[in-house]
Amino acid sequence: MTTSAARVAPSALRRAQDVVAPATRAFIARLDDTSAAIASYHLGWTDASGAPTGQGGDKGGGKAIRPALATLSAQAAGAPAQVGIPGAVAVELVHNFSLVHDDVMDGDTERRHRPTVWAVWGTTSAILTGDALLALAQEVLLEGSSPHRAAAARLLAEATRHLIRGQVQDVAFERRGDVTVAECLEMVSGKTGALITASAAIGAVLAGASAEVVAALSTFGAQLGIAFQLVDDLLGIWGNPEHTGKPVFSDLRLRKKTLPVTYALTHGGSPGRELADWLAGSEPPGSDSTGAARAADLIEAAGGRDWAATEAQHRLAVATQALAAVPIPTGPREELIAIAHFIVTRET
Amino acid sequence: MTTSAARVAPSALRRAQDVVAPATRAFIARLDDTSAAIASYHLGWTDASGAPTGQGGDKGGGKAIRPALATLSAQAAGAPAQVGIPGAVAVELVHNFSLVHDDVMDGDTERRHRPTVWAVWGTTSAILTGDALLALAQEVLLEGSSPHRAAAARLLAEATRHLIRGQVQDVAFERRGDVTVAECLEMVSGKTGALITASAAIGAVLAGASAEVVAALSTFGAQLGIAFQLVDDLLGIWGNPEHTGKPVFSDLRLRKKTLPVTYALTHGGSPGRELADWLAGSEPPGSDSTGAARAADLIEAAGGRDWAATEAQHRLAVATQALAAVPIPTGPREELIAIAHFIVTRET
Repeated sequence: MTTSAARVAPSALRRAQDVVAPATRAFIARLDDTSAAIASYHLGWTDASGAPTGQGGDKGGGKAIRPALATLSAQAAGAPAQVGIPGAVAVELVHNFSLVHDDVMDGDTERRHRPTVWAVWGTTSAILTGDALLALAQEVLLEGSSPHRAAAARLLAEATRHLIRGQVQDVAFERRGDVTVAECLEMVSGKTGALITASAAIGAVLAGASAEVVAALSTFGAQLGIAFQLVDDLLGIWGNPEHTGKPVFSDLRLRKKTLPVTYALTHGGSPGRELADWLAGSEPPGSDSTGAARAADLIEAAGGRDWAATEAQHRLAVATQALAAVPIPTGPREELIAIAHFIVTRET
Repeated sequence: MTTSAARVAPSALRRAQDVVAPATRAFIARLDDTSAAIASYHLGWTDASGAPTGQGGDKGGGKAIRPALATLSAQAAGAPAQVGIPGAVAVELVHNFSLVHDDVMDGDTERRHRPTVWAVWGTTSAILTGDALLALAQEVLLEGSSPHRAAAARLLAEATRHLIRGQVQDVAFERRGDVTVAECLEMVSGKTGALITASAAIGAVLAGASAEVVAALSTFGAQLGIAFQLVDDLLGIWGNPEHTGKPVFSDLRLRKKTLPVTYALTHGGSPGRELADWLAGSEPPGSDSTGAARAADLIEAAGGRDWAATEAQHRLAVATQALAAVPIPTGPREELIAIAHFIVTRET
């Protein structure tokens, strides 16, 4: 399965990118010129001067996991991939709304190897561009004549509420030293999970699928979202900088209290206590690669690395089981599972 | 008409506030605790510590013009006011999303005599609370079983895009010295007009009204939105501080290039040129009440005050005519016209 997964998943992602990028461009063109130019830069289509980068979106626009889930979700309900496209475009717009606003809130100056929107155009333009992308996502879904467009738009609006709740919790957790693994998982289920859940279900909703199929796809997406974040957190500490494009131990240098860190802090005995002391230390974040290397060892000694890897595999298994419980055509089911395997085994 | 307008309009506004505030509260309660608390403060229901202010929303939440238009819009289409309530709640949420974000962008520290959200909780919380209100507005519209909810939600999403376009233009105009009256009116038609237009039409859309009635109500709202801003601009310069609660010449102290200022700059001969010199001067905004008084005289001498007042009356007339061209029951029609008169003759 793993070998075939590694072969199949990227093709499903590329296919989604190929159909979704042109539709997304057509909607972005509706925005005022300033917001459209900034969004095109953020999505990787143009540079900061507005010149095309020649990227259809693959490099700049991320892995297209959410749009791929959305189109496969329609196919899982027996409809053509086409039916899921408004959902695919909409989830990608909401994802990018959240990235543009998060970069302002986190003060991050770089994303995907390029300066962030606020770093180039300032906070005001970043707020407005994010707002424009969020409103546009609803337009995408609400046009046309699908009898299920209101249900899909409602699903996305609710997911956005949960996504924002997760971000609110993440911000609050930064100021706390006593966050539990359960609280951290709850935060992740919103911040990362809500939109992946919606992506996995929205195509089926647009296709008018039964409540059972929509529920199974939602469970699949919810488990996948948490697995995605667990792997993200592992890569942020132990990822190969040549693959991730980020500095070694990048999340630890920023003192991010990710899931493996939270596990180590709350289950880790003496290594966990040493880790807590290091996190509470006065060294400025980013300056301390020896300290970060030591912190990575402490997390591993405290069981945080093993726990996160095992938990990701467990979530993958539950996600896969959810799909087995309902009638879904074999092709889309296998592609959904392949994407899930790709998410858990990826190196970037 | 004017006397009766002054009597009728406030009662329509109060009535809207009475039905919309409880529905809005129920939706706000759905947000995460932090966003709900911040939104409750912004809406005037609680103080910064979370203690109830005893205000149903009238004082803190503004004049309820938009919700009143939304419920009357349903009645204009022959439906009960109740049918317009999701629209009324949704437009009020979008209005407040834009206020919370605008205060961040403009760096305004006070609104309705209280510290702004970002001034109390910081920029991150203000961005997130605004985002939450925008997403929630769509949820409000998309619930229930109205066959017209997708059309109403689409109307609101499009209006939000135009509102954001107007704000983008407003930000860009601050850096330009050559903005024309036509450009400024176009900006206002988005920033202020888009949501008032949507408010005037959304109840009718929810009621399944004919395209003609929706179009007439949209024209009414679009004209009213511009009249609203013209009067706002006049009050920002010549308003009585005892009524407006703002310092005398408040907009001029902030060097705001509002519609009467833009008219004076572009049509005002020698007073216009003196005004341009003053606006370009190096005195820090806010420090200069003698200068602001002189600037107000220059705007008047250049014809900006008369133009704005005449233009507001003209927009009121066009708005009223738009309603006369379609079959709308007498009661709601008169109340809509009364609100329009109230907007143009108000002193706060």
